[in-house]
Amino acid sequence: MLQTRVGKRTAAAAFRIAVALVDEGRITSDEAVDRVTGAQLAQLMFPRFDETAKADRIATGMNASPGAASGKAVFDSYTAVKWSRSGEKVILVRRETNPDDLNGMIAAQGILTSRGGKTSHAAVVARGMGKTCVCGAESLDVDTKRRRMTAPGGEVVEEGDLISIDGTSGAVYLGEVPVVASPVVEYFEGRLGADSPAADDLVRAVHRIMTWADERRRLYVRANADTAEDAARARRFGAQGIGLCRTEHMFLGERRALVERLILAEDDEERESALAELLPMQRDDFVAIFTAMGGLPVTVRLLDPPLHEFLPDITELSVRVAVAESRGEHNEGDLRLLQAVHKMHEANPMLGLRGVRLGLVIPGLFIMQVRAIAEAAAQVAKAGGVARVEIMVPLVGAVQELEIIREEAQQVLDDVKNRTGADVRALIGTMIELPRAALTAGQIAEAAQFFSFGTNDLTQTTWGFSRDDVEGAFFSAYLDRGIFGVSPFETLDREGVGKLVRIATEEGRRTRPELKLGVCGEHGGDPDSVHFFHEVGLDYVSCSPFRVPVARLEAARAAIESDGSDSR
Amino acid sequence: MLQTRVGKRTAAAAFRIAVALVDEGRITSDEAVDRVTGAQLAQLMFPRFDETAKADRIATGMNASPGAASGKAVFDSYTAVKWSRSGEKVILVRRETNPDDLNGMIAAQGILTSRGGKTSHAAVVARGMGKTCVCGAESLDVDTKRRRMTAPGGEVVEEGDLISIDGTSGAVYLGEVPVVASPVVEYFEGRLGADSPAADDLVRAVHRIMTWADERRRLYVRANADTAEDAARARRFGAQGIGLCRTEHMFLGERRALVERLILAEDDEERESALAELLPMQRDDFVAIFTAMGGLPVTVRLLDPPLHEFLPDITELSVRVAVAESRGEHNEGDLRLLQAVHKMHEANPMLGLRGVRLGLVIPGLFIMQVRAIAEAAAQVAKAGGVARVEIMVPLVGAVQELEIIREEAQQVLDDVKNRTGADVRALIGTMIELPRAALTAGQIAEAAQFFSFGTNDLTQTTWGFSRDDVEGAFFSAYLDRGIFGVSPFETLDREGVGKLVRIATEEGRRTRPELKLGVCGEHGGDPDSVHFFHEVGLDYVSCSPFRVPVARLEAARAAIESDGSDSR
Repeated sequence: MLQTRVGKRTAAAAFRIAVALVDEGRITSDEAVDRVTGAQLAQLMFPRFDETAKADRIATGMNASPGAASGKAVFDSYTAVKWSRSGEKVILVRRETNPDDLNGMIAAQGILTSRGGKTSHAAVVARGMGKTCVCGAESLDVDTKRRRMTAPGGEVVEEGDLISIDGTSGAVYLGEVPVVASPVVEYFEGRLGADSPAADDLVRAVHRIMTWADERRRLYVRANADTAEDAARARRFGAQGIGLCRTEHMFLGERRALVERLILAEDDEERESALAELLPMQRDDFVAIFTAMGGLPVTVRLLDPPLHEFLPDITELSVRVAVAESRGEHNEGDLRLLQAVHKMHEANPMLGLRGVRLGLVIPGLFIMQVRAIAEAAAQVAKAGGVARVEIMVPLVGAVQELEIIREEAQQVLDDVKNRTGADVRALIGTMIELPRAALTAGQIAEAAQFFSFGTNDLTQTTWGFSRDDVEGAFFSAYLDRGIFGVSPFETLDREGVGKLVRIATEEGRRTRPELKLGVCGEHGGDPDSVHFFHEVGLDYVSCSPFRVPVARLEAARAAIESDGSDSR
Repeated sequence: MLQTRVGKRTAAAAFRIAVALVDEGRITSDEAVDRVTGAQLAQLMFPRFDETAKADRIATGMNASPGAASGKAVFDSYTAVKWSRSGEKVILVRRETNPDDLNGMIAAQGILTSRGGKTSHAAVVARGMGKTCVCGAESLDVDTKRRRMTAPGGEVVEEGDLISIDGTSGAVYLGEVPVVASPVVEYFEGRLGADSPAADDLVRAVHRIMTWADERRRLYVRANADTAEDAARARRFGAQGIGLCRTEHMFLGERRALVERLILAEDDEERESALAELLPMQRDDFVAIFTAMGGLPVTVRLLDPPLHEFLPDITELSVRVAVAESRGEHNEGDLRLLQAVHKMHEANPMLGLRGVRLGLVIPGLFIMQVRAIAEAAAQVAKAGGVARVEIMVPLVGAVQELEIIREEAQQVLDDVKNRTGADVRALIGTMIELPRAALTAGQIAEAAQFFSFGTNDLTQTTWGFSRDDVEGAFFSAYLDRGIFGVSPFETLDREGVGKLVRIATEEGRRTRPELKLGVCGEHGGDPDSVHFFHEVGLDYVSCSPFRVPVARLEAARAAIESDGSDSR
């Protein structure tokens, strides 16, 4: 039998009891919503090990990052990467991890360490990745040199042996324990109705609490979704729109060759022909997304990443070319590509030619995207549907950038409207993800019909650190020394980043009282941050589809709590 | 004869006339100071071509970046780099430049283009580098394929022919025109006394205006200086202290091997032994600087750049190792170094493990620096001198970071004081160079005795762009399209970055009224920015030694103008 999974039991009990107390007339529905938490709901949504299965628990560590994972034990990152590339599922087992283990952690299903607490490197990085992790299982004797570990009961796990770890309880099992889907997720997915005979009282309790929560909250909840499939799931989970539809993926896959042509173009004609080929493909992408959202608002972010992200890595390519040349070989295509990569190389790509800057420097790029959006909206309208589009310009730091793009975009929208006769309506707005955008929000609101706070990038620029570089390098030390209580990428830093959100909200609304305000960073699904966004007065939060129920619940709890404090 | 150099003539005349009007009793000394500008003074300080020399002017373009430069004409960046490496002075001649020309521009003495205005790529990048540039000399027919240019008078300049360009007037000359030092610089250097018979009336006028300015200004002016030589020059130019003494160079040159040992250290003992060898060398560096400043304040910034900057470039090293391996060779040292480089590689080094983060993560590093500073101060005191040290912690984003370093530093200071019996006094403060530091300045001031605004980094994080990556990539387009009026790296962006400076000043002083406030970014020597810093109420500005006279003059003009507007 599996050990009692206290956390999940408690979470399920909280929902059941809250509903029972309402039925007994002892508390109100508001009080019921306030008695449960988004964190509890999130626990109920992780896949879990089958409680009826036989499993041999050999140790318990700390529940560092939730979820259930099984795989072959490997004791170094190199093996983790190699085995995972050949299709094996692996669990990376280390005494403790360090920045060298990053690739191994990415490759693994889960991470198990015998040392370190909830602020250890393994724990911090795994949570950042959303990867299952059990850390500090001190009773395990991990011998990385001999590639094996020994449990206190004498069980020996050699490299390649199957193990399972439960990041929600901290349990470590021998062998592969079967995983069952969460019935709460089945309910949200619509595969298990709250009224159906198969639903248990937990599902019914969750259903009633969510119904009360939806009636009670003031914040709208949207989802971040880039494809029609994600959009459809987002709706099933209760999203009232898409707050962030990234367009990067519309330049990837089979289209990469076209994008290379676009980047390497030596004149306007070559560039325009590449853009013209991309246009109909992207129009189809948008038709599918708008159709899936059936009239709910969809915020489309124009291309954000630097273009060299679509080209090969400079070091890999340099090595390939140099090694070929040392053999007397010569590849003209690689050489040309290397020149382009050198030309576009940036010392700090996050602070380089990306976002609106790309739109202002690469002729026709944003225009093509806006035309694809507008033609898709017209097509949906002609087919009897409705597309409510919000076109979002990324990385704006000055109102003048937005004004130029806005004017060009408006011309395209008018042109498509005139040519198709369809009712193409779109708002044009901007991300607020640079400190300067927040500080000059009063000006930017002159040109923006909506703001969406990109709190990931805003956290990076406000603190001056990039998540990729710092989470593994020093967050663990910072948490240990009390510099942070929690990673500012998990929960919004109210004192720093939050101050900018407040400034931008106040100054933006002063200029344009009807300004629509939302957030599309990952903080949109974090309970504490949702409360902050409610207090500041945003209109909506947007988060990944799986976090939508958590955001719905916490938005209601924030409304209830602020009403309570108002009436005091 | 050289053409009339209107700009410089006008500047010199302005100084002479202002003084003459005072002597005639027609204006006050305040009015005289206000009639000249820092920009004019700066013009008088550039080296200039000898006006008595014969020179053949063949064209005139725009005065894009001031100075006088001579060298062999080259028509592509590859040749510029190659010739400059073999010791030749070159002038890079292009129709227009683009980001590919960056290395050629760095290698050249000056840049000449036949197309583009003051916001062209060449102009923007050259100004950013402080390199002489004439742009848009449209009468020149530049033929880069044949490697030559033809002037309207029929003169042909082939690759390798000597030419001279005057970035202050825009003139282009055939041949090498001799350069003479500016008499105004000779005066500031102390090589030409204002009372000496060799001084002309310009030098005497500058002397009198600067004397009035120094009496009138409220802002102190310091210099950024890293060595005893720079410090001595800074004093000659009128600096009242060092506002930024960077310590990077104390880890370079012959000490690089020690730094490699420090970085590659596998245990505390190896690291401590490398640090122990660095300590006495750095102590000597500080003794020289403190002695040169003779009791004026010296702000020492603890190590700021990421450590991998002290290691070889990842791409170069990867190529070397791969090519060697493809030949069956094997260099153990290179391999070990490559591992370390890989481990420390950062996607965005500017947003990575640097500044105070290094001090918190690398045991003993900041301690060693503080000990070297304290022991140097004790040594100076014992020799009968005075060292007024201000220890500055870089890249602080949260007060907790500063508190930890401050406590460690205070222990070292106390320890050195007790052991030497010398009167070692030091303030401990921080850079304000991250938006979060400015936004939480009220908290940070609890632990800081002074703030110094690092406006370069603050501009980079507030706008979310890194100077290296963006100045060449899109600033020219931004200036052309009116998004900027001037590069925010030249003149402080009052609306964005300036707002943070205001917030930090107000909140810092609210916590600690006696908080000392200064600025050590390059903006400290920019006229418009100096006025802003006066208005905001900083105590001092710090800039490169050559800009100190400009800052002294503009600080006085700011005081006069704000008094004028107060009394209106």
